[in-house]
Amino acid sequence: MTATIRPVKGTRDYYPEDMALRAWLYDQMRHVSELFGYQEYQAPILEPIGLYAAKSGDELVEKQSYVFEDRGGDRITLRPELTPSLARMVAQRQNQLAFPLRWWSFGPFWRYERPQKGRTREFFQWNIDLIGDPSPEAEAEIVAIAAAFFKQVGLRSDEVQIRVNDRRLLAKELESIGIPEQARTPLLGLIDRKDKLSPEAWILQTKDIGLANAQIDSLNELLANKELWRGSESLERFFQAIEAFGASEYVVFEPSIIRGLQYYTGTVFEAWDTAGEFRALFGGGRYDNLVSDVGGKPVEAVGFAVGDLVITLLLQSLGRLPELAKSPTDVFVTLFDVSLRDKSFAIMNALREAGIRVAGQLTSEKLGKQFKYADRIGAKLAVILGPDEAAKGKVGFKVLATGEQGECTESEMIAKVRQLLEA
Amino acid sequence: MTATIRPVKGTRDYYPEDMALRAWLYDQMRHVSELFGYQEYQAPILEPIGLYAAKSGDELVEKQSYVFEDRGGDRITLRPELTPSLARMVAQRQNQLAFPLRWWSFGPFWRYERPQKGRTREFFQWNIDLIGDPSPEAEAEIVAIAAAFFKQVGLRSDEVQIRVNDRRLLAKELESIGIPEQARTPLLGLIDRKDKLSPEAWILQTKDIGLANAQIDSLNELLANKELWRGSESLERFFQAIEAFGASEYVVFEPSIIRGLQYYTGTVFEAWDTAGEFRALFGGGRYDNLVSDVGGKPVEAVGFAVGDLVITLLLQSLGRLPELAKSPTDVFVTLFDVSLRDKSFAIMNALREAGIRVAGQLTSEKLGKQFKYADRIGAKLAVILGPDEAAKGKVGFKVLATGEQGECTESEMIAKVRQLLEA
Repeated sequence: MTATIRPVKGTRDYYPEDMALRAWLYDQMRHVSELFGYQEYQAPILEPIGLYAAKSGDELVEKQSYVFEDRGGDRITLRPELTPSLARMVAQRQNQLAFPLRWWSFGPFWRYERPQKGRTREFFQWNIDLIGDPSPEAEAEIVAIAAAFFKQVGLRSDEVQIRVNDRRLLAKELESIGIPEQARTPLLGLIDRKDKLSPEAWILQTKDIGLANAQIDSLNELLANKELWRGSESLERFFQAIEAFGASEYVVFEPSIIRGLQYYTGTVFEAWDTAGEFRALFGGGRYDNLVSDVGGKPVEAVGFAVGDLVITLLLQSLGRLPELAKSPTDVFVTLFDVSLRDKSFAIMNALREAGIRVAGQLTSEKLGKQFKYADRIGAKLAVILGPDEAAKGKVGFKVLATGEQGECTESEMIAKVRQLLEA
Repeated sequence: MTATIRPVKGTRDYYPEDMALRAWLYDQMRHVSELFGYQEYQAPILEPIGLYAAKSGDELVEKQSYVFEDRGGDRITLRPELTPSLARMVAQRQNQLAFPLRWWSFGPFWRYERPQKGRTREFFQWNIDLIGDPSPEAEAEIVAIAAAFFKQVGLRSDEVQIRVNDRRLLAKELESIGIPEQARTPLLGLIDRKDKLSPEAWILQTKDIGLANAQIDSLNELLANKELWRGSESLERFFQAIEAFGASEYVVFEPSIIRGLQYYTGTVFEAWDTAGEFRALFGGGRYDNLVSDVGGKPVEAVGFAVGDLVITLLLQSLGRLPELAKSPTDVFVTLFDVSLRDKSFAIMNALREAGIRVAGQLTSEKLGKQFKYADRIGAKLAVILGPDEAAKGKVGFKVLATGEQGECTESEMIAKVRQLLEA
């Protein structure tokens, strides 16, 4: 026997029980997306490197992307995120599409990072975007979708929180405390990492950027000021709309939220578990220049992306994951022996034609082993055809959870099976 | 404006109308898979090159695979097919799994081929496999699933056909007409390409392999013999089970079916449109050595794979594609002006909380333009809140297909909307 070939580091195998969970999560995302009228789309998994070069941020493009040459010599990227592909697709058909677009997508992405809890190199993301509406109300709709998703998967507002800021507001405030323009971009990067720094390191690094002590005090003060949004017309409209959409309990203003991606132009937001045990659940914001950056006419956009991993870990830690069926099998049909094979197969066929989900025994085997298999795959019911039943034109049945047994005529079978499955 | 960034050659953008079709096809595949009790799973999209080296066949691995080094120097492949990943996953958990396994999957694959009608470099495939059952009845179940899928998508047995052969039978027949062992493998490859060769080229190339004229005559005779399966115990059992499963009309014996992949060990099959206008719709067969080839204990397996492209082209050419909704929007809620914004948003929220799918106007706009947008996204109903309605505690509604209008009180709204959507 050769050594088992190992999977690629940072990828995941989805065995049926894992896949059932991912499919459930995808269904929740679909449900919420559709409640708000969003259409599903998909972009290719391979994109040209040039698509990301402009705006995704140096770290993502230069350090984390999987880039390679194909057999024709083209430089190809395994997409590390979806937004640039979305911008490209919008730019390509800008004259045919009905704006505002409400689009969502779910699929795989790759980043070459060190695998750890809540982080793999191959991961799945839900992306949802509203394109062609510059209003704070558009931002509020997107954040209300995030809140609706939390409600949908059973996460309460004391467990998760959506923290909102506006880069424009922060830029204005930095200007007002006398931070020179050239220091603002590195300072925003530093604020983005503030929660990963010790208070000492924070002060040291702000000084490195050139801030005076008084400026650091003012900065700390404004980053602690949860009322900073009042007076910003767009944030006031945003929070008013959040209230009308019934999402207030999940949404707070947080002046230290920045987001790493360079293409955000205004409102930005992140969702966190309030206990602070996990990485950000998701992030998003307004990015009004990306469509024109990839060659389209300027169009306003706002959206967010949620990875499947951290949300799953959070739901798991709260005991909030659903119980999912082991397999889609409703009925297991037994096989007595070769002489009854055709008849057993015909029973499987008749049940399937009635829309009942059936797995069946294909080769002779002890009945005890057949029942054990039916149990392991989670079938609800066994339909049994032995020589006694066959002689009488009947079939037997057994409810696997209770052991309840009985028999009925072949012509009654489908009605009886339906009745037992509904019970 | 910079030039629009182009997608990678051979990839596809799925705009919402394309995605709706792919999602429909996926749903049909899921429905049929589950009718037979199969569980969904997923393998990574990146796999080590060594996984394919053994058995997928030289052309697939050496000429068509996307292979690259990751940032850590590992040789990675974008999966060109799923079966080796499946074998790897089975080998990894062989002692925990409940055999026979009934597993299916749907996802993207890559092959560096020349893009043409029905062929892209990035494509999607449905894979379905029965693992751990050596019987001809297991093969029949898999082929019956293929037939059930055709029925499910509305393809009749005079339009598509599943052609079945057994490599073991053919090997025995080649031996009986005196083809020496070393000539049999190249000859099988040649038979696999027979339908792409002119009669002259066929004769020329069989002679190149070393066949005498009499052997070529015998070979042509056996390849034309549709009764060759009679007398093969396994094929006789196979066709008997196909009949019991109610799939006979779709399935024929065809001695020239070989399949390109090297890992097939017995029964092989392909589906074709009977008019012969398209490439093979799908292919599959028995592959009993693959799990042990990747390091597991030997376990028998049979399965098939269907690409999404050719089946879609065939359905399209027969006018058999479904009419799909433009968007998931049931109701469009209008916005009169800023003074009614909160109230309009609260109406959207109330409808969504009742499970109704709603897109809404977020910023002031002429009502005519709002209706035009509602129409373009395919909303069935508009809910209208103007100052007159608001003053009376009412909302207006308009059925977009018929133009029918009316109004109701706010408290009646949800019941009224449900009633109009069901009509």
